[in-house]
Amino acid sequence: MEKLTIIKVGGKIVEEPQSLKQLLTDFSKIEGHKVLVHGGGRSATAIAAKLGIESKMVNGRRITDEEMLKVVTMVYAGLVNKQIVAGLQAVGINALGLTGADLNYMRSEKRPVTDIDYGFVGDVKEVNAALLADLIAKGVVPVLAPLTHDKVGNLLNTNADTIAGEAAKALASYFEVTLIYCFEKKGVLMDETDDDSVVSNLTPGLFEQYVSEGIINGGMIPKLENSFQALNAGVKQVVITRADRLQPTNGTSITL
Amino acid sequence: MEKLTIIKVGGKIVEEPQSLKQLLTDFSKIEGHKVLVHGGGRSATAIAAKLGIESKMVNGRRITDEEMLKVVTMVYAGLVNKQIVAGLQAVGINALGLTGADLNYMRSEKRPVTDIDYGFVGDVKEVNAALLADLIAKGVVPVLAPLTHDKVGNLLNTNADTIAGEAAKALASYFEVTLIYCFEKKGVLMDETDDDSVVSNLTPGLFEQYVSEGIINGGMIPKLENSFQALNAGVKQVVITRADRLQPTNGTSITL
Repeated sequence: MEKLTIIKVGGKIVEEPQSLKQLLTDFSKIEGHKVLVHGGGRSATAIAAKLGIESKMVNGRRITDEEMLKVVTMVYAGLVNKQIVAGLQAVGINALGLTGADLNYMRSEKRPVTDIDYGFVGDVKEVNAALLADLIAKGVVPVLAPLTHDKVGNLLNTNADTIAGEAAKALASYFEVTLIYCFEKKGVLMDETDDDSVVSNLTPGLFEQYVSEGIINGGMIPKLENSFQALNAGVKQVVITRADRLQPTNGTSITL
Repeated sequence: MEKLTIIKVGGKIVEEPQSLKQLLTDFSKIEGHKVLVHGGGRSATAIAAKLGIESKMVNGRRITDEEMLKVVTMVYAGLVNKQIVAGLQAVGINALGLTGADLNYMRSEKRPVTDIDYGFVGDVKEVNAALLADLIAKGVVPVLAPLTHDKVGNLLNTNADTIAGEAAKALASYFEVTLIYCFEKKGVLMDETDDDSVVSNLTPGLFEQYVSEGIINGGMIPKLENSFQALNAGVKQVVITRADRLQPTNGTSITL
């Protein structure tokens, strides 16, 4: 199988011209097939504010009512996605920007209302990776915006980490997939006050040990649980690192 | 060669939920391979106004400064394009929304400043139709937003009629192309006060005759000149009609 690297980068880095330019240069140096998954929350909040729409967050997730759905559709699928695509074309990468509605590659269902109504937010139900895999094999680099659709006409706001994880799992049938999650630290840290105490390799056994010892805690736990889930679904390797250290040999490598 | 129908619809019809729904239903009934090209100017003007940005038009064309480029990128590639894509997926059409930057399918150059500075507006220079043709042959329906790119990192605002014409010419190497331009009348009219006086077939000879007789005048002349140009470049047929009469047997059929 050919190798495929799927890289998820947070909002901030793709929303400022200088850091975006650096990212695209770094990304262009990664060999072989690749996919870029991006956020865009800061721009969505800024544009919403200019339009007089207040951003409401619950547990770090955006409440997406009808007006906010229009904003995230404009910002994620329009402004952020197309600036990345045009920037990648400029460095010789044949990028293709996609939402889950395009090619029907990712179908979701509106999250049921419980005590919280997240609004037009989608939980992924189905990934159709055949056409995507075919394009990747031809040298195309998909750029995935954090939006899916329900196949009955509605776009749905969907977490970019989830998009990256689900795409990785589905594409694992076609490629040997490495999934790289970029966040603000160099990797999983043994000591969170020391940015150089990166755990270079993490296995399920070590993960359980570090959780019981309190070394790994908080929001890192679900992130790593998702990573093991992806590995169990056929993804070869998950890497957690900082966006300025994009090579998979940096950061924390997570394997089974 | 297999048949391909390329349909260009103006902004208004894709910008109102009710008329969009009808359009997508009508579009879904067209047999064989197809492409949809859309505008979105009214929405761009409305969103720009909400953001406190004034829309300036010269000769019916939008002056696109840096801020306006962001607006049209959000509205054309985001809001309008993705709502159409999601709507087409809901009626069983495997749509794929594209700007010229995606797959580098349409490269343009920023229009030179003469007495008017149109800003970030692109004149089409190159169409790379191979990947597009391949996707169409696989059953994918491209939905083209009126944006191109210059291959050095800039998106450029580009007239939707031009996008449709250039795509039609390039795809004529792969398919037997019919290009349908929708506008507010049923077709080219013998008497512009009588909406039923549609010229059913127009050839270069008849065109010249009607122009000399004053039957065809004004903005219809460049529209038809573009149509003949497309026919000379290998497009099989151009039809000018109203969006609620999408079948190519309606309206004015233009042939060599």
